[in-house]
Amino acid sequence: MAYADATPKEIDHALKEAQAAFSVFKNLPGKKKGTFLRAAAEGIDALGKTLIETAMRETNLPEARLVGERARTTGHLKMFAQLVEEGAWCEARIDTAMPNRAPTPKPDIRKMLVPIGPVVVFGAANFPLAYSTAGGDTASALAAGCPVIVKAHPAHAATSQLVAEVLVAAAEKTGMPKGVFQHVFGSSFAVGQALVNHPLTRAVGFTGSLAGGKALFDLANQRAEPIPVFAEMSSINPIVLLPESLRKDPEGTAVKVAASITLGVGQFCTNPGLLLAIEGEGLQKFVAALAREIGKAAPGTMLHQGIAENYATKKAQALAQLGVAVEAEGLAGTRQQGQALVASAAADTFMENPTLAEEVFGPFSLIVRCKNKQELMQVAGKLHGQLTTTMIGEEAEVAHYQELLSLLAEKAGRLIMNGVPTGVEVCPSMQHGGPFPATTDSRFTSVGTDAIKRFVRPVAFQNFPDSLLPDELKESNPLKIWRLRNSEWTKN
Amino acid sequence: MAYADATPKEIDHALKEAQAAFSVFKNLPGKKKGTFLRAAAEGIDALGKTLIETAMRETNLPEARLVGERARTTGHLKMFAQLVEEGAWCEARIDTAMPNRAPTPKPDIRKMLVPIGPVVVFGAANFPLAYSTAGGDTASALAAGCPVIVKAHPAHAATSQLVAEVLVAAAEKTGMPKGVFQHVFGSSFAVGQALVNHPLTRAVGFTGSLAGGKALFDLANQRAEPIPVFAEMSSINPIVLLPESLRKDPEGTAVKVAASITLGVGQFCTNPGLLLAIEGEGLQKFVAALAREIGKAAPGTMLHQGIAENYATKKAQALAQLGVAVEAEGLAGTRQQGQALVASAAADTFMENPTLAEEVFGPFSLIVRCKNKQELMQVAGKLHGQLTTTMIGEEAEVAHYQELLSLLAEKAGRLIMNGVPTGVEVCPSMQHGGPFPATTDSRFTSVGTDAIKRFVRPVAFQNFPDSLLPDELKESNPLKIWRLRNSEWTKN
Repeated sequence: MAYADATPKEIDHALKEAQAAFSVFKNLPGKKKGTFLRAAAEGIDALGKTLIETAMRETNLPEARLVGERARTTGHLKMFAQLVEEGAWCEARIDTAMPNRAPTPKPDIRKMLVPIGPVVVFGAANFPLAYSTAGGDTASALAAGCPVIVKAHPAHAATSQLVAEVLVAAAEKTGMPKGVFQHVFGSSFAVGQALVNHPLTRAVGFTGSLAGGKALFDLANQRAEPIPVFAEMSSINPIVLLPESLRKDPEGTAVKVAASITLGVGQFCTNPGLLLAIEGEGLQKFVAALAREIGKAAPGTMLHQGIAENYATKKAQALAQLGVAVEAEGLAGTRQQGQALVASAAADTFMENPTLAEEVFGPFSLIVRCKNKQELMQVAGKLHGQLTTTMIGEEAEVAHYQELLSLLAEKAGRLIMNGVPTGVEVCPSMQHGGPFPATTDSRFTSVGTDAIKRFVRPVAFQNFPDSLLPDELKESNPLKIWRLRNSEWTKN
Repeated sequence: MAYADATPKEIDHALKEAQAAFSVFKNLPGKKKGTFLRAAAEGIDALGKTLIETAMRETNLPEARLVGERARTTGHLKMFAQLVEEGAWCEARIDTAMPNRAPTPKPDIRKMLVPIGPVVVFGAANFPLAYSTAGGDTASALAAGCPVIVKAHPAHAATSQLVAEVLVAAAEKTGMPKGVFQHVFGSSFAVGQALVNHPLTRAVGFTGSLAGGKALFDLANQRAEPIPVFAEMSSINPIVLLPESLRKDPEGTAVKVAASITLGVGQFCTNPGLLLAIEGEGLQKFVAALAREIGKAAPGTMLHQGIAENYATKKAQALAQLGVAVEAEGLAGTRQQGQALVASAAADTFMENPTLAEEVFGPFSLIVRCKNKQELMQVAGKLHGQLTTTMIGEEAEVAHYQELLSLLAEKAGRLIMNGVPTGVEVCPSMQHGGPFPATTDSRFTSVGTDAIKRFVRPVAFQNFPDSLLPDELKESNPLKIWRLRNSEWTKN
């Protein structure tokens, strides 16, 4: 078998190689790391049709989606290349000495972010390119200066292997230390466990189920030396639909929401699984329009049989709950295809039954009917942590729901106004991460430039001779980066 | 009894009050929070002699030290007031919309740091003012916008009570919501446990023992919804003494190092408990000089009987290890006084016996004699995570130890050149925090302005009307703060 599980010995060897690589890699200038990341992006593009066809075969995702995902992946790599080539991301802070200060002299102290060491990345089922082998976790960890070991997702091992070969070749071509990027296979939990438990592993990136992410988080915290786990796990991304807006445009809103529910057969972490609204004529019209849209939705083949079965099971479980009614069903398909479904329940039913707040990974959404504004607030107050929450409402109307908005902000990493949660922009202001169980650490994002912050920690240098300081902190500012110097931002 | 343990009902009530306060406090402008922190600083100063005398009685710390610590405490409060009054600490990032971008329009996204909710702070035994009731944890959490519940350290409950009354009065005077600061007592572990386990608690600050900090960390991770614990626990702050420097100035170095070992009866988290050096004439002369200095050291009364007993026990345990020799002892005192001691061991003895790497909290240090540079590297490679590591060496000499320096940087949060680890400057570039077991989270600092980052998380606002954005993110930049706008730093 080509993709045999890594043995404990192989895993130990990989971590030792990674640690050896770290002692060189951590000190490389940003410009060098940038050439590596850019070479990786070029190599991925150069795989051309082979990569797309392999991924299509393994994931059932359509060509256009995979071509887009490839652009997102090479885009990540180039974005992080640019970030580290420029250099200011390291948050250089300088406080110069005051040798004559009384009662004690003030020493010279300079601080910057430094990489933490070998990072283990678990490939994600739903993003065979952008959140797998050369995905956001890998790109940000390498940019930070951390060697990476990727465990390929078993559902797309061949795709992962192709990309891994590109990364290894790019590292070699650009003079990176051996072991800076490594790739292992593992379909048993034991492989993941050994990777997380290895004493040289310093952090873990994961995108997947709540059960999987939480298991890795628990392992990591039970180590003799606990390490951070950045697991993106479970989010139902509530959309709050305000009455006035529903009254004014039930049709347009339904079209937008239905498209978001069924996008990519609902296999996005930002899929809207919960619709909150106040009962009334607007909601009635919206539900009718949504039912029409969902009824037209063609079933899509899901990523793999396991995901399709899980979708069917979780959907059936939700529908089996007391007080849950089916509002609309999409067109039926094969066993591996995900048939869209929208259900509804009264607010008190939802609040009393925790099962209804669980993620149903696929094209499913639950409408929660609230009697009034007060009940809507109560439901919002009971929500678990989310990646996103969305509000659809007229500006004048939203102004009357500021308390609700403020409450929703406590529950999520990103608040969207009059949009849909699917579609995650890659930029400095993106926050993709939210309170538990959306992620294991709401203080970090897995998308956008700030994703690099997951794999670094600050180190202060006190009273260092200039010659021994990293370039980022040298008095002459050779990298010409923005630095906080004696509490003022400056490039000088 | 005046300082009775808080009951489970009282703790539940306190957290509910804190959560209610949060809904108001989180939205207050920085200038309002600043007036509260400044009023607290004024109130502490106004306590005058009462506070100092109470703390002297409870902690045995001398007046001058407590007067200094009070200045540090009010300094913290004013520093954080200034930080939030200015406002740029929230890391505002703005990416403006590109409605015509193909294939999909780019939405307007704006991100900033927001407070996470009620924070529980455990008072520290060794800093009755600066790391207790109104200490760095409390000041930074309040500055962030998080209500705080302090559990007083039982060893200085009266001091804590005095400061708590000041904080409550300052909150009331400056119009803060009720419950923004609360104070409870607890000498049993059950109180701490109930505080950490309460579902409304969002983060924990702690300074103390490894056993205590690790227990809270484990509790927090086993919650249904895990929360971050910032525990500063155990560090032996190694000093590496390079040969050339020891040869040139054994006396001067010994005076400096002895003073750092005995400062405050060794009751600092940055106390140097480990001295690493290569055998030779320089080391011989240094040890003789150090023995002379330590021999003169007067014993100081320790913070409380428990700490004194723990010091005696841990010191005896270290001395009972095979291959450990006493090099110098300070003057003897009473049972509650800490008698200084310096011991030594060969490098292989140290590396083989993990007991020798444990913290002995008090005026104790262990010299590790290395045969050569290579063995010194080996010892450094085996070190646990530390708050600090220090190198004493001539600039030309240090240049030959860059690999060692790079290794030491993997082990600590702060590297000091030709200084001592005691004395922690409060400034933006300070890093007080290091890899486990020094702290539970090396990515954060408990000293300096960045301490505020422990109690916040980023939230992104997508496609929000300007009127509903926080001031920090409004298009007109009403606070005139530095913001990263379309990847460029600007105040416009």
